[in-house]
Amino acid sequence: MDGSRCRLSEEEAAHCAKVLRHREGDIISVIDGTGTLYRCRIISASPKCVEAEMISSEPDWGTHPYRLHLAVAPTKNADRYEWFAEKACEIGTDEISPIIGMHSERKIFKTARVEKILLSAAKQSLKGAVPAINEPMSVKDFILKYGSDNTGKPLRLIAYCFEDASHPRISIKEAFDKYDGHEAIVMIGPEGDFSPEEAELALSHGFIPVHLGTSRLRTETAAVTAAEAAYFRWME
Amino acid sequence: MDGSRCRLSEEEAAHCAKVLRHREGDIISVIDGTGTLYRCRIISASPKCVEAEMISSEPDWGTHPYRLHLAVAPTKNADRYEWFAEKACEIGTDEISPIIGMHSERKIFKTARVEKILLSAAKQSLKGAVPAINEPMSVKDFILKYGSDNTGKPLRLIAYCFEDASHPRISIKEAFDKYDGHEAIVMIGPEGDFSPEEAELALSHGFIPVHLGTSRLRTETAAVTAAEAAYFRWME
Repeated sequence: MDGSRCRLSEEEAAHCAKVLRHREGDIISVIDGTGTLYRCRIISASPKCVEAEMISSEPDWGTHPYRLHLAVAPTKNADRYEWFAEKACEIGTDEISPIIGMHSERKIFKTARVEKILLSAAKQSLKGAVPAINEPMSVKDFILKYGSDNTGKPLRLIAYCFEDASHPRISIKEAFDKYDGHEAIVMIGPEGDFSPEEAELALSHGFIPVHLGTSRLRTETAAVTAAEAAYFRWME
Repeated sequence: MDGSRCRLSEEEAAHCAKVLRHREGDIISVIDGTGTLYRCRIISASPKCVEAEMISSEPDWGTHPYRLHLAVAPTKNADRYEWFAEKACEIGTDEISPIIGMHSERKIFKTARVEKILLSAAKQSLKGAVPAINEPMSVKDFILKYGSDNTGKPLRLIAYCFEDASHPRISIKEAFDKYDGHEAIVMIGPEGDFSPEEAELALSHGFIPVHLGTSRLRTETAAVTAAEAAYFRWME
């Protein structure tokens, strides 16, 4: 985007001119990835380069009335994480952090593919902003980085499955209903759950322990359920 | 299941003896598919036949405090429907009906594969009951069969995207919150949405028009969102 003109990246140009077969004069919708959608008229179109002039712009296009950061442990099967990322984007999520726990079987994670999926999901679901995917980090580092001493006052939740008499969990629904702000961070553990040490560290850094109801959910389903909990909390 | 003895089907026997490598004397969990989980001790195990004696039984195992019937139009891509079926089972759903609408691009639907997915999802998520998958029917036939004159008093909802001044939609969250029963039927349309005629017919048969919030959701995401709305409505 440069003044009233925009040039699509080579990949987007190929999609626009080759796949969608757009030609000079066609009106297309372009997102800048940070929240604004532009209606543009194509000036020149080739599979290598598409140039268009801006007709109108819609700021905060397809946004949601809250900010949600989901910290989710990689799943054994990468497809399941990619599926979660697509759905989280459709429902409404701003930031995703892959977190590696003590009980994580999968300790490596490639963000590039998830980045692609988030972009196409944002385009498909008409969102001006594309959710950010962070580089993977350990559960411990995530807690130290996003714990209560380090960032504003978002609602901080950690969902785990084991019972802990000294720290009774409330439902994620109750936690959201009690919160009157507009920013939440939710941690979702690996198939093997968070370790008691990880849970303890999170609680000592301002995370509230929650459960996701009585159903036994896979990691990616738990993560989508967290996204839905926020979506319903602010649904009108 | 026959008295205190049970014999696994050939497919389950192969999974139990070959894949899980269970042997005589091992304790296994067996579901009858209608809500009961049995703890059983294996008497004899071969890849063709596994026999076990019941030690204990847990009725209503992994059930949820409501009954949910999701009527969802087939997606263009069958994988997406299968994904929805798996997630709906994990979250908590009792019955799924593929419904073919006037705007459905996909008019044929094979239930066999979805049946398999529901069974393995029920086993994976430790549910005693396996959701039922019905044979596909038209939206019109579904409304006539499940409309207000024909079945008890469940909450009947139809989710569509177009605005209709004469029938303002409320959010699915509000519809569930206002309902004090424990049984719901939710209709989710195809990519092309329900037709105004289909919506009109549904409304005249006791279905309440709802929206699923401001996000633009794919059919399978809308269906999972409906399952989550029920899950949160009855979450404690």
